Amino acid sequence: MSWNRKHLLDIQSLSVEELRIILSTAAEFKRVGERAIKKVPTLRGKTVVNLFVEPSTRTRISFELAAQRLSADVVNFSAEASSLKKGESLKDTARNLEALNVDVIIIRHGATGAPHFLSRFLSASVINAGDGAHEHPTQALLDVFTIQEKKGDIKGLNVTILGDIQYSRVARSNIWALLKLGANVTLCGPSTLVPRHFEEIGCKVTHKIEEAIANADIINLLRIQHERQRQTSFPSIGEYTSLFGLTKSRLETTKKDVLIMHPGPINRGVEIDSDIADGDRSVILQQVTNGLAVRMAVLYLVTGGRGTQEIAPASA
Amino acid sequence: MSWNRKHLLDIQSLSVEELRIILSTAAEFKRVGERAIKKVPTLRGKTVVNLFVEPSTRTRISFELAAQRLSADVVNFSAEASSLKKGESLKDTARNLEALNVDVIIIRHGATGAPHFLSRFLSASVINAGDGAHEHPTQALLDVFTIQEKKGDIKGLNVTILGDIQYSRVARSNIWALLKLGANVTLCGPSTLVPRHFEEIGCKVTHKIEEAIANADIINLLRIQHERQRQTSFPSIGEYTSLFGLTKSRLETTKKDVLIMHPGPINRGVEIDSDIADGDRSVILQQVTNGLAVRMAVLYLVTGGRGTQEIAPASA
Amino acid sequence: MSWNRKHLLDIQSLSVEELRIILSTAAEFKRVGERAIKKVPTLRGKTVVNLFVEPSTRTRISFELAAQRLSADVVNFSAEASSLKKGESLKDTARNLEALNVDVIIIRHGATGAPHFLSRFLSASVINAGDGAHEHPTQALLDVFTIQEKKGDIKGLNVTILGDIQYSRVARSNIWALLKLGANVTLCGPSTLVPRHFEEIGCKVTHKIEEAIANADIINLLRIQHERQRQTSFPSIGEYTSLFGLTKSRLETTKKDVLIMHPGPINRGVEIDSDIADGDRSVILQQVTNGLAVRMAVLYLVTGGRGTQEIAPASA
Repeated sequence: MSWNRKHLLDIQSLSVEELRIILSTAAEFKRVGERAIKKVPTLRGKTVVNLFVEPSTRTRISFELAAQRLSADVVNFSAEASSLKKGESLKDTARNLEALNVDVIIIRHGATGAPHFLSRFLSASVINAGDGAHEHPTQALLDVFTIQEKKGDIKGLNVTILGDIQYSRVARSNIWALLKLGANVTLCGPSTLVPRHFEEIGCKVTHKIEEAIANADIINLLRIQHERQRQTSFPSIGEYTSLFGLTKSRLETTKKDVLIMHPGPINRGVEIDSDIADGDRSVILQQVTNGLAVRMAVLYLVTGGRGTQEIAPASA
Repeated sequence: MSWNRKHLLDIQSLSVEELRIILSTAAEFKRVGERAIKKVPTLRGKTVVNLFVEPSTRTRISFELAAQRLSADVVNFSAEASSLKKGESLKDTARNLEALNVDVIIIRHGATGAPHFLSRFLSASVINAGDGAHEHPTQALLDVFTIQEKKGDIKGLNVTILGDIQYSRVARSNIWALLKLGANVTLCGPSTLVPRHFEEIGCKVTHKIEEAIANADIINLLRIQHERQRQTSFPSIGEYTSLFGLTKSRLETTKKDVLIMHPGPINRGVEIDSDIADGDRSVILQQVTNGLAVRMAVLYLVTGGRGTQEIAPASA
Repeated sequence: MSWNRKHLLDIQSLSVEELRIILSTAAEFKRVGERAIKKVPTLRGKTVVNLFVEPSTRTRISFELAAQRLSADVVNFSAEASSLKKGESLKDTARNLEALNVDVIIIRHGATGAPHFLSRFLSASVINAGDGAHEHPTQALLDVFTIQEKKGDIKGLNVTILGDIQYSRVARSNIWALLKLGANVTLCGPSTLVPRHFEEIGCKVTHKIEEAIANADIINLLRIQHERQRQTSFPSIGEYTSLFGLTKSRLETTKKDVLIMHPGPINRGVEIDSDIADGDRSVILQQVTNGLAVRMAVLYLVTGGRGTQEIAPASA
């Protein structure tokens, strides 16, 4: 089987086979990042646009570097001072970008479904870099890539996702990827943020952290968005930390070889103890490194890459 | 005859011959955008600066992609957080950029004549990307390129420009280009925005839309800047639409093969009916595509390009 | 002796030998900027990040062009809308960038020592682009490069630095470079801004401009930061100009071949008379040109460049 999609919109609609193609392609590209010349000519003469309607320096830079290392031309489009501010619709903005013979539009948007909407009328490829509280597929891909790299096969592993599940696109994309690859997924957090209905798609739901972490092979901590804290969800940051923060004493109750993951940026001392973030179980920075490889793979695949024989070093 | 100018400051001072050189060069570059590798090595090792003192994501990206596809290095300079904010004069900012061995400065500025001012002391090439209410030459070039592509020779065509003529640099540049190429130009809009004195340079002026569109081969609609509406010019957006908007019933009174143009971003339902914008007479998105080809041509010519034998594909 | 440093953090810790290596390497790179193709393949496949936590368009563009002309990939990271705004620490931001296999982090930061701090845990190279009131090493390097270019050996030259010495990183870096290379350094300005303790490191301190400029071979004027004027340091801009501004009548009391320098952006009519800034003794724009050569040299050296045989023209 081979890759036939022009877009990467979500994880939910991908087959297990497609997930595996992305992961194995990312493994090839990871080696590129370790070379002295971290660049291949694969997307030379192609144009990639970072259409970040919702700002994110971190994800934008990861995609920008991924495109540069594939030798694509990249332009950054941020919503400030743009025609979107002048009342232009997203549809018209995207069609205007496409009229510039753009090959890939990477979109981050506050509204669920914005990438799917674009994919319906654009002939350019669309990559979802996060849409509302819906999905953030490349984050999930880098997470499962990292798990696979450290633990081998994902099938049968116990993965606990801890934090604000309800409003998290990272959680949602991770859940789909993990379930498809055969992991046992446990969700944990305040009952206001981790509703029972996630059980219907095959997750275990608990509001007791002790129960959630005891048998976990992987603990994926979500960021507490304290800069836009939802007052009604939990009383205070301190309260959250005392009930759900990954502290040293809690870490002692986990398996010795548990992996600690976090999509970043981390809040040291809030959802994660600072020493744990820097400790030897943490793979937080490896996730960042793998994100670049995964994004190179996705750019490569959606633009029609079929094999890895093209991933040769760029000539000087 | 060949191209001898180092700058592109306006349309008014160009000869018919020079206009034709740009248009035929743009036709060559348009083919580059249709290749799998949309890139030529023409400006390799040259540096282009986008000096956008007045912000414009759309035009900036078009110039940025044009420069990238010519293999130039591009840096973006926006007025926010820059030395201009610290009280540095435009002259000093430009001379500092030039001291970095910059080859081309593309300037957008709120003040009429800013590009001409720079050209007087800079040895770098200057391209006007819009100066106040004065000129926006590459917009006019892409407009006449699009007309020529669809209609053949411009001579004798009836072109109607509709909207805020008085304060529009797009209108002004279009008028000069169209008159030079032999079109019959009609200007239409509220009398507060379309003064009679345009008749002196050879345009027809009317304030009745029916009269303006009846025999038009091309209708070029200008954007109503409703985000900074001049209260004194017309009573309300609704009023403008009812008197001058291009509605379906009005379209029925035009020639069957009329071209509908708009520099974008469009206000659907204000100056143009949404279905007309997306309809088969509209060439709005082709204008965007052609804008890139025209800007590649201009960058090529002002930096000393003399023929099109250099427009070979970039090696991989 | 050869270059062995992975970082450029300050001037104070450099040896005279190291200073000379940078200056001679910069001389090689200056020639690259004068070629038709201003680009060499030296850093192809390397990634450079401009981490400008304190904004500066001018310095950012100089570094960006330096990296582009070495064929590196460059991404710009500004503090606005970034994870730093979400409460992430500088350490975590930098480690995240490094996890993207970044080779060089160029940092400008409001806090003294920020680049040194990063260099302690990063394996990427760190270049200080200005840290608080501490140092701005590439500015000092371009200043001494310019002096050397115009005057030959710096040893024994009388260099006067005029203005806000106390809070100026430009002054501090210049003082170290000039003293190491054997210049006689005089500091002058209001007593509130030019404290006596600079005498301890070998400078002459005076609060009388006549005395400071009479025998100067070079006068380096610092910018008066009038947009954030410290009310307590001097009564008013007008007062400053009348007491310490470089006026035409004051220039007549200097040596005939004195060089006038300024790091820019200049305040015409405040610290410097407008005609003097544009006059034939001024080397202000040459400083800008040399800044690019110096920054190319620094990028080259910190990434392991050992000789100049690699500085060949890039193939087309």
